[in-house]
Amino acid sequence: MALIVQKFGGTSVGDLDRIRNVAARVKSEVDAGNQVAVVVSAMAGTTNQLVSWARDIGPMHDAREYDAIVATGEQVTVGLLAIALQNQGVDARSWLGWQIPIRTDDVHGAARIDSIDTTLMRARLASGQVAVVAGFQGIAPDGRVATLGRGGSDTSAVALAAALDADRCDIYTDVDGVYTTDPRIAPKAQKLERITFEEMLEMASLGAKVLQTRSVAMAMRHNVNLQVRSSFSDAPGTLVVNEDAIVEQEKISGIAYSPDEAKVTIQGLPDKPGIAAAIFGELADNHINVDMIVQSAASEGQRTDITFSLGRGDLDKALEIIGGNKEGLAFQGVDSKGDVTKISVVGTAMRSQPGVAKTMFETLAERGINIEVISTSEIKISVLIASDYTELAVRSLHSAFGLDSED
Amino acid sequence: MALIVQKFGGTSVGDLDRIRNVAARVKSEVDAGNQVAVVVSAMAGTTNQLVSWARDIGPMHDAREYDAIVATGEQVTVGLLAIALQNQGVDARSWLGWQIPIRTDDVHGAARIDSIDTTLMRARLASGQVAVVAGFQGIAPDGRVATLGRGGSDTSAVALAAALDADRCDIYTDVDGVYTTDPRIAPKAQKLERITFEEMLEMASLGAKVLQTRSVAMAMRHNVNLQVRSSFSDAPGTLVVNEDAIVEQEKISGIAYSPDEAKVTIQGLPDKPGIAAAIFGELADNHINVDMIVQSAASEGQRTDITFSLGRGDLDKALEIIGGNKEGLAFQGVDSKGDVTKISVVGTAMRSQPGVAKTMFETLAERGINIEVISTSEIKISVLIASDYTELAVRSLHSAFGLDSED
Repeated sequence: MALIVQKFGGTSVGDLDRIRNVAARVKSEVDAGNQVAVVVSAMAGTTNQLVSWARDIGPMHDAREYDAIVATGEQVTVGLLAIALQNQGVDARSWLGWQIPIRTDDVHGAARIDSIDTTLMRARLASGQVAVVAGFQGIAPDGRVATLGRGGSDTSAVALAAALDADRCDIYTDVDGVYTTDPRIAPKAQKLERITFEEMLEMASLGAKVLQTRSVAMAMRHNVNLQVRSSFSDAPGTLVVNEDAIVEQEKISGIAYSPDEAKVTIQGLPDKPGIAAAIFGELADNHINVDMIVQSAASEGQRTDITFSLGRGDLDKALEIIGGNKEGLAFQGVDSKGDVTKISVVGTAMRSQPGVAKTMFETLAERGINIEVISTSEIKISVLIASDYTELAVRSLHSAFGLDSED
Repeated sequence: MALIVQKFGGTSVGDLDRIRNVAARVKSEVDAGNQVAVVVSAMAGTTNQLVSWARDIGPMHDAREYDAIVATGEQVTVGLLAIALQNQGVDARSWLGWQIPIRTDDVHGAARIDSIDTTLMRARLASGQVAVVAGFQGIAPDGRVATLGRGGSDTSAVALAAALDADRCDIYTDVDGVYTTDPRIAPKAQKLERITFEEMLEMASLGAKVLQTRSVAMAMRHNVNLQVRSSFSDAPGTLVVNEDAIVEQEKISGIAYSPDEAKVTIQGLPDKPGIAAAIFGELADNHINVDMIVQSAASEGQRTDITFSLGRGDLDKALEIIGGNKEGLAFQGVDSKGDVTKISVVGTAMRSQPGVAKTMFETLAERGINIEVISTSEIKISVLIASDYTELAVRSLHSAFGLDSED
């Protein structure tokens, strides 16, 4: 007998029929003799409606009231799913964040989970009752409802799995696993059987929206056995595991891409200490996130260029800030490009295989794709290219690294 | 400085503009130097949607899950109203049933309030903060959300007013007070300045749906100063008061009517002890509420007739039950009528004025309206008449008792 945490997102509980379908999936785990805690999101669309009401009622924004409003979406789903389970002959009860309780910090609207008291729930699980848990919510130190921020139900599920020391945490979603790349632009993309936490983190932060980044980091920290699978099919999903669990990784795991990037080059900066701090400090003060940064080497006493990437939506604001400080920074010119894409090759395999960067650069060069910026981490190589080449680059790299499916 | 409890129903908070309008009304009490606790219902239509989901998800019905689902409607409204108040410069916070807490019994779906702990709320009110309270909900002994049944927000408001020892409890609704009769059928109906709790109870149970019966009974028990007024106008409403507060009542207070009644006469019953118990016990066992009952006098050893009224929707079922027990009851025949209306004259004035019944019967006789059944209480005389005469009877009695407005 295993203890399993299941998580179903908003699409999976989007209407009453789908909730009944979720109940059937829960029941099959119960029938297999397992203890089950199931975490659910709000019905698709509900949270958006609640958020827009909370925003439209007035410009001032009390995050505690916002939380009280938006947390109702999950409260409705847990009640409905508990009834659906009872109607399929499964003993079940709903648990709201404050009832468990799931204790959070006081950052309303984007709270972090401090602790989960599982005493009551464990007793119920042991008696064979399914725990139907409202995702995305907890109770803050002031006794008010707190929410974890968008996508927080993944985090609720992983945190609960850690607190219950669950044997498995299955994240059901509308795709059937993690793919080597986006199947919409590379039809030969394959579902990965396994992926490491580190790789999943890189993929998630690159826009593969299968799992929320925070929940992956938490699963890694607590060594939770995570599985991503489809709520609409019985196909096995993708296991997210510790690196130890993958004996020898020969191939890289995937090609990720992040469109809607922009690039800024500040030319002819004085090559002296403090210049980078001045530029990026001011951008950070204005809540602009900068991603890749490269500085061209300069001879002693010469001028230098700094290039960085950022979200396209922040480009105009960034240019305005830099332009407004031309005297302070003493640069000679600014160049920018609003239509670039970041392409990344991700895989722990590159730790042991030195040829990955070479293969990547050669493949792009063969297709005539110019690399504008390069940055690397231990398990990832990212390049910035012109957006027009996105699909070609993804498909070419996918083939070059041997990831194409055979059919 | 006074402490005021205000209650706004679903129509009054039906959309964001109306919620802003409610905030303005709350603000005017705050600006007048009062402490305010405001109880709100769910936005009109929301509760029906939630109830239908809870019913449609499956035939088995766990009242605890039903409560978790339907209580979310009020949770949304309190959050929105608190934000609306803050945007009008009024310090405010929302309170859910479990946060106060409002403790109830364990009859989920139709719970009764056991106690309200106002310690925390009093401190906040004293600091000038408006308490925005979710109506209709509390927390049961098992720590689960409990709801008070439909219309329960009136009860929440009155109970809170009693617990806070409030100076006034204002029930805002979509009518501007209690009328001498239904203005839709008697255009000369007048708004009452005052009405006693007892009269209000009679009016409420007769279908004047201005206040929930339970909330009136609770206000009477705790001597809460109740006022019914419109959320859409500034006109003064109707005060619901103790009889002592009305020095001398010369007129009766109103003419109420209850359509959708039916009448059954069981003829030729043996006149012996236990017959009434047998008939009405069996109807009660089948959840059929019987209202007026008259038994015609019989000479010693003779047969007798029993006539009673009931809701029209229960008529067929009642006839079936009675017909199925013809041997046991040993009656000779059954007669029924499905289109009768109960007309009632209500007023504490009739305690001191013996002519009320005479005026009522004479007025109806003059119009050729036949009285089928009569029943009386200390402050009410009710008759059953053919439904076709409803409007004529109401208007005639309204005039006869001097209730017509002059314009």
